[in-house]
Amino acid sequence: MPNRTVFFISDGTGITAETFGNAILAQFETTVRRVRLPFLDSVDKAHQAVRQINHTAEVEGRRPLVFATVVNMEVLAVVKEHCHGMMLDMFGTFVEPLEDELGIKSNHRVGRFSDASKSKEYNDRIEAINFALMHDDGQSHKDLEGSDVILVGVSRSGKTPTSLYLAMQHGLKASNYPLIPEDFERRKLPPALMPHRKKIFGLTIAPERLSEIRNERRPNSRYASLENCRAEVNEAEAMMRREGIRWLSTTTKSIEEIATTILQEIRPERLAY
Amino acid sequence: MPNRTVFFISDGTGITAETFGNAILAQFETTVRRVRLPFLDSVDKAHQAVRQINHTAEVEGRRPLVFATVVNMEVLAVVKEHCHGMMLDMFGTFVEPLEDELGIKSNHRVGRFSDASKSKEYNDRIEAINFALMHDDGQSHKDLEGSDVILVGVSRSGKTPTSLYLAMQHGLKASNYPLIPEDFERRKLPPALMPHRKKIFGLTIAPERLSEIRNERRPNSRYASLENCRAEVNEAEAMMRREGIRWLSTTTKSIEEIATTILQEIRPERLAY
Repeated sequence: MPNRTVFFISDGTGITAETFGNAILAQFETTVRRVRLPFLDSVDKAHQAVRQINHTAEVEGRRPLVFATVVNMEVLAVVKEHCHGMMLDMFGTFVEPLEDELGIKSNHRVGRFSDASKSKEYNDRIEAINFALMHDDGQSHKDLEGSDVILVGVSRSGKTPTSLYLAMQHGLKASNYPLIPEDFERRKLPPALMPHRKKIFGLTIAPERLSEIRNERRPNSRYASLENCRAEVNEAEAMMRREGIRWLSTTTKSIEEIATTILQEIRPERLAY
Repeated sequence: MPNRTVFFISDGTGITAETFGNAILAQFETTVRRVRLPFLDSVDKAHQAVRQINHTAEVEGRRPLVFATVVNMEVLAVVKEHCHGMMLDMFGTFVEPLEDELGIKSNHRVGRFSDASKSKEYNDRIEAINFALMHDDGQSHKDLEGSDVILVGVSRSGKTPTSLYLAMQHGLKASNYPLIPEDFERRKLPPALMPHRKKIFGLTIAPERLSEIRNERRPNSRYASLENCRAEVNEAEAMMRREGIRWLSTTTKSIEEIATTILQEIRPERLAY
């Protein structure tokens, strides 16, 4: 049974409240029940949310935690005045000191994600997702020079999810190319990649883990056998060393960690960062 | 020229620092230069980061903003003691009051995203991404009943990025199906979808915006013409109304907003939330 109910409330999507709240909750060995209350953009909806939170407080006999990223001052006032939860007012806490530091007032703009269709950054992200899909698994050589990064590695080393994450979160145009037995025989990178060597980043993985993953897809195949996985990984790592390609092992890493490392290493010029 | 340099520092990926920091910065009409300093997992690296921050402070003549999600107490101590930036210690600010509230100490675990490969939640996300790719654009009817949500809409109404986002961020198994002229002629949903009606969610879009998007792909085609876009959107909306399908317009919405709305409406039972 969860020890506590946690509400994420926002006048936008609540994604920030959730990301931040979950990061903080990960610091505690406790089980919680999570409730999202996004789009609280009117006083009415604020009262509704308060009723729900207070009802939970009453039923459970302890106050819920309320991670709030509310920009609308009227909405925030209602919640602050009436809510019986423990308020963690994430914007309020940091916005005021920043107003002093920057010497300007905050604009109370709701939701970084709204009016998205008009923003260049947003359109770049959507375009990057389409690019990643078109250039998944070596599907297309077209516009390969348009890539910000080209991931290489054996089949199921984590290239596809990483490419999509880089596109979705960072607007990065990521292609990915499988390293296959033909490449190992030729002892060379796929020819299409040669002109773009600077953008290449390698992913590798422990053969035991690779075999597990491949076995889920094609049980008891030669493709999934530990012996074959060992041979492919050996060849791939030898090639990356030979070609001087930067690489990392994905075995115990999340796509977030892999993507962060790649950004550190590749530092694509196109990015605002 | 940017008014200020902002550092996101963390002993993990820094994704939380960045998400939260950017949400707060969006409240201010100011241009900033952003620098990510992830994986600060030793006192040495902490000193290196501090040198970089202090150098920036000196060169620019004003103190950088430093959004920090640092869990390692030694690393945090170095930064707090020596850094000449404005520290916004995001964990510290909220973790202590929560320790009091929950009556337990925080565990100082670094990075929600580490040791990911062992977590069921993480493996579910990766599986969901593969599922979304396999069930993109009506590609496969296989295991359609395994979907948590099935998005329908005309070509380029936003189904693919939304499916991938739902998979990546929420571990939701999202299929998507295009509504095509044959469906409009038959005046019926694609037959494969009929048994799964409860999971269907529709996306629509203003014909003008649709025509713009399609023109980028296939300039001056009948497919992209405003007239054809109008007709398709009309038919699709009429069908959704007739079939009693929940839907929203993606015209001015981001994938984050679309996904949040879908989660509110569909409330998939499989989700922990």
